[in-house]
Amino acid sequence: MHRLCIHTITTKPWSIAEAVRNYAAAGVRHITVWRDAIAPHTPAEAGKLIRDHGLSVTSLCRGGFFPALAAAVRVKAIDENRRCIDEAAALGAPHVVLVCGATPGQSLAESRKQITDGIAALLPHAAAAGVKLAIEPLHPMYAGDRSAVNTMAQARTLCRSLASPHVGIAADTYHIWWDDDLENQLTLAARENLLLAYHVCDWRVPTTDFLNDRGLMGEGAIPLRAITAWVNRTGYTGPIEVEIFSTRLWAADQHVFLKNIITAYRDHVI
Amino acid sequence: MHRLCIHTITTKPWSIAEAVRNYAAAGVRHITVWRDAIAPHTPAEAGKLIRDHGLSVTSLCRGGFFPALAAAVRVKAIDENRRCIDEAAALGAPHVVLVCGATPGQSLAESRKQITDGIAALLPHAAAAGVKLAIEPLHPMYAGDRSAVNTMAQARTLCRSLASPHVGIAADTYHIWWDDDLENQLTLAARENLLLAYHVCDWRVPTTDFLNDRGLMGEGAIPLRAITAWVNRTGYTGPIEVEIFSTRLWAADQHVFLKNIITAYRDHVI
Repeated sequence: MHRLCIHTITTKPWSIAEAVRNYAAAGVRHITVWRDAIAPHTPAEAGKLIRDHGLSVTSLCRGGFFPALAAAVRVKAIDENRRCIDEAAALGAPHVVLVCGATPGQSLAESRKQITDGIAALLPHAAAAGVKLAIEPLHPMYAGDRSAVNTMAQARTLCRSLASPHVGIAADTYHIWWDDDLENQLTLAARENLLLAYHVCDWRVPTTDFLNDRGLMGEGAIPLRAITAWVNRTGYTGPIEVEIFSTRLWAADQHVFLKNIITAYRDHVI
Repeated sequence: MHRLCIHTITTKPWSIAEAVRNYAAAGVRHITVWRDAIAPHTPAEAGKLIRDHGLSVTSLCRGGFFPALAAAVRVKAIDENRRCIDEAAALGAPHVVLVCGATPGQSLAESRKQITDGIAALLPHAAAAGVKLAIEPLHPMYAGDRSAVNTMAQARTLCRSLASPHVGIAADTYHIWWDDDLENQLTLAARENLLLAYHVCDWRVPTTDFLNDRGLMGEGAIPLRAITAWVNRTGYTGPIEVEIFSTRLWAADQHVFLKNIITAYRDHVI
């Protein structure tokens, strides 16, 4: 239990105050906060609320979406990411997870270039705030519109080109489980001090929605225990974050769901 | 126009007789036949019908689905693939496209082993029939249940391990467009005499269905002209096959759709 972290979006019907109270009562010690869950609190208030309940903040989700056809839009995105970094600092989150973005009408290579430039522009601000940026490779089914960074190998290439201690990777099983080089990529990322976060959920068969049909661990095809063993073998000892977007599970009683998350974490992840 | 090929499933509302007549009238010279489009004809009758209209058969779609938890089910799959090879021979199709399969409850590596064993078991039959087997790498979003072969690199590895002149690859832009090593992989596949087929369609943004929301070329995010140029540069001079599964486009007037396919092929593919 000491490594279990839950994303506020996983129990989306709950306010952050309810989530913190219920997670704490269930023995959960870590929380990842989604930006839209903070209001009506300020980030500093939310951080205090979390710590007052004995929890620690793992990450703030999420920044990113750097590419755009128009330069002015790209500049706006960088400004928005600066605000996100400030929120993370106020909240007490050691890193911001980045969903990097992709823009139809330009090549994935061009989007990756704009992502690199965007993150590079943020680095001084991140360094000053003491907040790291965790690039999350997204499943190739999101290459059309959500991220041009779709594999661990691409995320590592991006990190190498940025060459900053303030950039790393958030590895989410949902996005990368199919990769036949995954064990090796996790090992390399950890060796390069890039492995900042580890997210779990499951891939339902069939999956019926591109965004909101993720499975609870054990409900799908991802070999979670094997992947967790690979992650542990790299020396990663950080939180294991449950991040599930599911219209089906959001419709259920969230107290029962929270119990099921804990059971599924024990039975299928660690 | 001399390279344009259309899959019967692209104009699914048409019988094979209607498809052949309408394709021929529009100047289309190649057709890929889906197995369920053959009835009420025999494969030999369908082949004659196609040739009588001046078209040639590019492929038969599709065999595969080799993995299963039970050995008896895997044996059945091999038998079914033998029938598929026989149909291709009778139809006059030089190859059968394989959607290789994946089974929840076992690792992707185990599914790939069963795929390798299944294809190996078919090779004598394929050789005797003079029919090649074209492995189609499927998008990683199908790794849960439709194929454990998700990249050109994996398909090449599979072909190398089988080491047979009767095995190759069907490269479909829908499945592989996101791969940042695609140009290189196409070049290598052609150099290894593995590039048997080239399929085109587009990736809609957003895509709303995992199977039947493909786009007409030009409607989405795939850089089709660039990929076709890579394919041509490998020396591939075969048909360019339009394979679109789309509830939306099947609901439209198929005569208008056929005209749109030809326009889109000229404007966005070649």
